Amino acid sequence: MTSTSQQYPEINPPPRTLLGPGPSMVDPRVLKAMATPLVGHLDPYFIELMNHTQQLLRYVFETENPLTIPVSGTGSAAMEASVANMVEPGDKVLVCANGYFGHRLADMAERYGGDVQIIVRPWGDVFSPEEVSAALKARPAQVVAIVQAETSTGALQPVDEIAKIVHEAGALLIVDAVTSLGGVPVRVDAIGIDVCYSGSQKCLSCPPGIGPLTLSERAVQKLTTRSSKVRNWYLDLGEVRKYWGSERTYHHTAPISANYALYEGLRIIAEEGLEARWERHRRNAELLWNGLEALGIELHVPLEHRLPTLTTPRVPEGVDEAQVRRHLLDHYNIEISGGLGELKGKVWRIGLMGYSSRRENVLLLLAALEETLTQFRK
Amino acid sequence: MTSTSQQYPEINPPPRTLLGPGPSMVDPRVLKAMATPLVGHLDPYFIELMNHTQQLLRYVFETENPLTIPVSGTGSAAMEASVANMVEPGDKVLVCANGYFGHRLADMAERYGGDVQIIVRPWGDVFSPEEVSAALKARPAQVVAIVQAETSTGALQPVDEIAKIVHEAGALLIVDAVTSLGGVPVRVDAIGIDVCYSGSQKCLSCPPGIGPLTLSERAVQKLTTRSSKVRNWYLDLGEVRKYWGSERTYHHTAPISANYALYEGLRIIAEEGLEARWERHRRNAELLWNGLEALGIELHVPLEHRLPTLTTPRVPEGVDEAQVRRHLLDHYNIEISGGLGELKGKVWRIGLMGYSSRRENVLLLLAALEETLTQFRK
Repeated sequence: MTSTSQQYPEINPPPRTLLGPGPSMVDPRVLKAMATPLVGHLDPYFIELMNHTQQLLRYVFETENPLTIPVSGTGSAAMEASVANMVEPGDKVLVCANGYFGHRLADMAERYGGDVQIIVRPWGDVFSPEEVSAALKARPAQVVAIVQAETSTGALQPVDEIAKIVHEAGALLIVDAVTSLGGVPVRVDAIGIDVCYSGSQKCLSCPPGIGPLTLSERAVQKLTTRSSKVRNWYLDLGEVRKYWGSERTYHHTAPISANYALYEGLRIIAEEGLEARWERHRRNAELLWNGLEALGIELHVPLEHRLPTLTTPRVPEGVDEAQVRRHLLDHYNIEISGGLGELKGKVWRIGLMGYSSRRENVLLLLAALEETLTQFRK
Repeated sequence: MTSTSQQYPEINPPPRTLLGPGPSMVDPRVLKAMATPLVGHLDPYFIELMNHTQQLLRYVFETENPLTIPVSGTGSAAMEASVANMVEPGDKVLVCANGYFGHRLADMAERYGGDVQIIVRPWGDVFSPEEVSAALKARPAQVVAIVQAETSTGALQPVDEIAKIVHEAGALLIVDAVTSLGGVPVRVDAIGIDVCYSGSQKCLSCPPGIGPLTLSERAVQKLTTRSSKVRNWYLDLGEVRKYWGSERTYHHTAPISANYALYEGLRIIAEEGLEARWERHRRNAELLWNGLEALGIELHVPLEHRLPTLTTPRVPEGVDEAQVRRHLLDHYNIEISGGLGELKGKVWRIGLMGYSSRRENVLLLLAALEETLTQFRK
């Protein structure tokens, strides 16, 4: 291939401040870990790293679950692993959908043969325990799925009471913690979540490509007593767990570098401490909220259910939201995101997650947004 | 979490020479690319990189297929993407299995509801066109799957004639090129392969976690005329292609760093040139073969079907193969691998792929192996 270097230049991305819904910015320590030379996926060194990673993941998930592992794909793969392993064809599944990711859970559950019932709330609202209770009384289910931190709306769904209701109804609870883990409390064991998954590229501030997941004893019981094979080879946790367990049986080649990154990202979290980290996310979010309101911008989600990790300001009347985003990117190297689905064109999505959740980023964004809005309102 | 740094030390792996079946060693240029700060998965910079990556992948696959992309998982995920998208429930599938990965293809096809027939050959043998022809005459199929480079046996399966037979029978051909792409010719368009997939961590010499895949027009036709949804959300190519196509619709967050790595790895291949690269793999493999035979070690696969990228020497009588591998790892920092499945305990697996395929690695391994065998034969 001739003149490759001209046609295909060396990687040299613009220096973005990433304040969208993910990927968030990656700590230089994690980037350094990514550049570490590889060892094999069955190397004794790597196996020790796997053990340490599992311990650190349990700390972050606040769980003692033995089956706490990273799945070899993004948060979406961890979501699919949860659904694929917990839903057998014909299983009755209740999905609570108040945003894009709730509906995706329903789509996945249907693909795995689940008999899916969806209850919905407007995007930005949360479900009350009574709604879930009523739905389960009207039609019992084996599995209930709900999103704790809806990345498409910025709403934080309380799941404490819902977990009790689900268990009283004899069902398993799957909770999406993609945009919460490491940024707001998830408390898997205290709440009694059966399957909880997340992504690496949000509050854990690692590159996307690896998806943490934890299964309760009840969930493992369901996994091991399935009457049919999991309809997904790559994400079959019955097989994957033999690699992460004492057998160390080869299943697929682990993404070594992504595991390095996750380990380093988790070390950083452990050093900061979960409580301090939640507090930092809260503090920087409040700075953003106050600043946005001072600019006369409304926030889509009421304070009581507002997610500190992802904020959804409403696009002011008469403003072209895409033009603003493009201007922020081109003139300030800041990435924020537009709305998804029902909220497309109506809100922006601003993430303050992990390494991106810093006071200087909030101040920069507010200043840039003020300048931009002034310009485009003229 | 107290005293994290003591409990969880900084990443500092032993400096391994990776000569197993993958991951192979990663070029320092690719490691550097992995450490590059991230941009968003819809950033104009990233979209340009995606376009360039697709062009380079087409070069390596030797194809003009528009739908040539990396899947967001390891080679196993690319394998599953191929099967999940091409096999609809009830489809008749013929799988040619002469090793571990052929049987895995059959397992996957069954999980997706395929009506699977397996023809088998001893591990290390290859299929003749006549065998495939006879099988298709006895039972027509919609899809035929075969492994070009069987990582479990070291056999190189010719697929030219088989492709013609499959097409004459009106079926689609899926070819596993995990251990061949970038190391031996694959020639997707010249042969007429309909679906061809690979992994990043073999001859492309990138970290594991991203799986190149290409679909012919016929395969895209099958994809777009399916009567049912793909039973896999994450790997649904009908959705994934909207992100890689002009729509740029969000599906899941692309693994940005793995894409950086793949791009850099492909640039290196384009600079070396495919022909020169095949020649290098062949030359170093021959050096290894001659050296092993000089040590009195038999090679499991006859020369005519021997894969240059992965060699399977038979374990000499009276030698504990695991002890040898452990010694090579502990005393020489060299990783080679043991046999899988039928060949467990009977062969070693030595990979000379991508950046690992270097003369100095062969010489080091031969010297280390000679010392080790001398010691353990005493």
